[in-house]
Amino acid sequence: VETNDRQKLIELMEPLHAADIADLLEQIGPYDRARLIRLYDREFDGEILSELHDNIREEVIGLLTPQVLAEAVRDMESDDVVDLVEDLEHPQQQAILHALEDSDRVAVQQSLSYPEYSAGRLMQREVVMAPEHWTVGQAIDHLRRADDLPEQFYHVVLVDPRLRPVANVTLGKLMSSRRDTRLADIAAESFQIFPATQDEGDVAYTFNQYHLISAPVVDDDGRLVGVITIDDAMSILDEEHEEDILRLAGVDEESSLSDTVAATSRRRLPWLGVNLGTAICASLVISQFEASIAALVSLAILMPIVASMGGNAGTQSLTVTVRALATRDLTGSNVWRVVRRELTVGLLNGLVFATVLGTVGMLWFHSPMLGAVIGVALLCNMIIAGFVGTVVPVVLEKVGVDPALASGTFVTTTTDIMGFFIFLGLATVVLL
Amino acid sequence: VETNDRQKLIELMEPLHAADIADLLEQIGPYDRARLIRLYDREFDGEILSELHDNIREEVIGLLTPQVLAEAVRDMESDDVVDLVEDLEHPQQQAILHALEDSDRVAVQQSLSYPEYSAGRLMQREVVMAPEHWTVGQAIDHLRRADDLPEQFYHVVLVDPRLRPVANVTLGKLMSSRRDTRLADIAAESFQIFPATQDEGDVAYTFNQYHLISAPVVDDDGRLVGVITIDDAMSILDEEHEEDILRLAGVDEESSLSDTVAATSRRRLPWLGVNLGTAICASLVISQFEASIAALVSLAILMPIVASMGGNAGTQSLTVTVRALATRDLTGSNVWRVVRRELTVGLLNGLVFATVLGTVGMLWFHSPMLGAVIGVALLCNMIIAGFVGTVVPVVLEKVGVDPALASGTFVTTTTDIMGFFIFLGLATVVLL
Repeated sequence: VETNDRQKLIELMEPLHAADIADLLEQIGPYDRARLIRLYDREFDGEILSELHDNIREEVIGLLTPQVLAEAVRDMESDDVVDLVEDLEHPQQQAILHALEDSDRVAVQQSLSYPEYSAGRLMQREVVMAPEHWTVGQAIDHLRRADDLPEQFYHVVLVDPRLRPVANVTLGKLMSSRRDTRLADIAAESFQIFPATQDEGDVAYTFNQYHLISAPVVDDDGRLVGVITIDDAMSILDEEHEEDILRLAGVDEESSLSDTVAATSRRRLPWLGVNLGTAICASLVISQFEASIAALVSLAILMPIVASMGGNAGTQSLTVTVRALATRDLTGSNVWRVVRRELTVGLLNGLVFATVLGTVGMLWFHSPMLGAVIGVALLCNMIIAGFVGTVVPVVLEKVGVDPALASGTFVTTTTDIMGFFIFLGLATVVLL
Repeated sequence: VETNDRQKLIELMEPLHAADIADLLEQIGPYDRARLIRLYDREFDGEILSELHDNIREEVIGLLTPQVLAEAVRDMESDDVVDLVEDLEHPQQQAILHALEDSDRVAVQQSLSYPEYSAGRLMQREVVMAPEHWTVGQAIDHLRRADDLPEQFYHVVLVDPRLRPVANVTLGKLMSSRRDTRLADIAAESFQIFPATQDEGDVAYTFNQYHLISAPVVDDDGRLVGVITIDDAMSILDEEHEEDILRLAGVDEESSLSDTVAATSRRRLPWLGVNLGTAICASLVISQFEASIAALVSLAILMPIVASMGGNAGTQSLTVTVRALATRDLTGSNVWRVVRRELTVGLLNGLVFATVLGTVGMLWFHSPMLGAVIGVALLCNMIIAGFVGTVVPVVLEKVGVDPALASGTFVTTTTDIMGFFIFLGLATVVLL
């Protein structure tokens, strides 16, 4: 790129997979990106667009000439075009839709009519189906005559006369069965149907849980409208995880390394703001015990330990609970068993560290009572940590808030405030 | 189960997928589990074992009678048996191996000879292959004659005369191509070969990055020994994410909701212990400023805010960096750009919150200088947070430690200690 050598660039990029080119575009700065795209130009492939992160993608589409863009999208499958188009501003969206052939445009527009993050957005409309009463021979002949089979497909979907999917037959089974076998007799064991409006996270979970490879999507009347394949489900699973991890750390889940500095700052501000608020609340609690601290400075020295241990124990419980909710391992039926367990764990680990810290406090400040106070405070805070770490995410999930998003602040605020309150309060009563 | 009604139980479980039965077994207590398994007995399916979490699995295997166990494993595919056997104690392992037919046993034992968490352990040995010079017609005839095709397969692997894989042909393409087409001409575009010793995490990443469906595995001489399918890769991706999330929260990655209380306590102890150590270090820093706090108790009230904001900002940077490392978005070539960006973000957000907190401090304690001191301390700590949050995981990755495992403690320790030190130190110099 430095030397503007177009030929050389194309040669270098030739062996790269679209996903790698997309990664490359994400890793370089905006200035280099613009130069590279102008040089690469006509060679630009639609698949690269699919692989790009959302916010970079818009920038790249803006850089492409209309002809190159039209060329690039025309080769894409319908689900990839939907994925590409759904996040774009209106004018860019229109430009791409116009570049498509009529039939493809209708398909894409229909998919866009389903809610965001639904199975309808995820599915591809190219489906291979056969009537349920056909035999293997009929299906094979049909497939070999068809000239517009999708690029990749793994199942033949069996449908009833009203186009409702009833079973899947794997291509492997089809290949290896006798021509007079009925398709219905060699149907795959694992079979799941997704309504077009179902949440894509649920779809990904179900694929992983039942080891599905592809699954039909139906409309409100139960009629087959498309098919979701495992590679799309895998991407969604990957995204959902990413979201959970980032949300647990209080980072906006849309963040990416290729954001600008200003965008990154802005995305991180909200949770830092919330944290500032809760930290000030904790300070207000401390300020109630100003006189105690003035009388015994060792309290100020030791109090962060109680809060920090509680925060850590709470985060452990919280993370386990958030994960268990996400993997559906934690359900209404075992929630109390889990809460009881976390309380017991808090009690056991609390006893261990209360003993250790009590001894440290006693030796450090030559005061057995101070040791006892910090030990008891730590024990209480760790039990509280186990309780809020479990109950808060469960309650948030119940009221429809993503537990990964808001639990962390709730939990650490509680353990901070309770830690300071119990330790300083107990010290005031016992020691002063 | 309550009423010991075996017939009813079998009827109830009949429609359930093996994965759901496994979830059920995980969610109930050990006592109910034992009773349920004794009742269910002969109906027990090998697939349920594959779906169980490791630590429950061992318990369940112990509960099954040898005949039921032998029956259960005989129907499983080689990769599932490997997955089942690899974590078992020696006697249980031997019992299962003996239950297998000779050819299966050899296959499983060969897989077990590859290192843990490698492609060799993940692959299934049942492969459908064809010489690269064959035509579509030859391949189809061969497949239709074969009577031991695997349950699920998606590609025919083309091999050269020395059994080295050279390309994949999808079954869909095979179906839709003319009989005289050469297989090599319809090979799939995305093709990756994995050495049997490759780490399973890398395999899962590559599947997701290049949207692979199945890929051949080769031995040291490049000869085809097995094939990995996307559903296995998806499970691994799921596990790796789980591991990252739990490790970031300082929870042992083997934890599960079905662990006993004692096991859970033990798994959480190590990081709580590390945290106690670092919290005591932070207290040692505070104790250096005992005289300052005694003179100005407001310092004790405000100091947790500086530490907490630094810890939060550091965790944000850290999580983004750990994720970027895991997704290979952060590489040697852009690490300095990312560090520079995080420092700038720390500076920007630091300025915002320094202003807010400085104002709060000033109004609260009626001291403009105290406001200035806490503002400056917060700004410094947030820049430090951005720096350590990025550099620590990168350095850990470089020296071969999982950054998700150890970064958190490093980062929050640094921001705690630096936060207390800068704030109290600055206050001592300026205010006293």
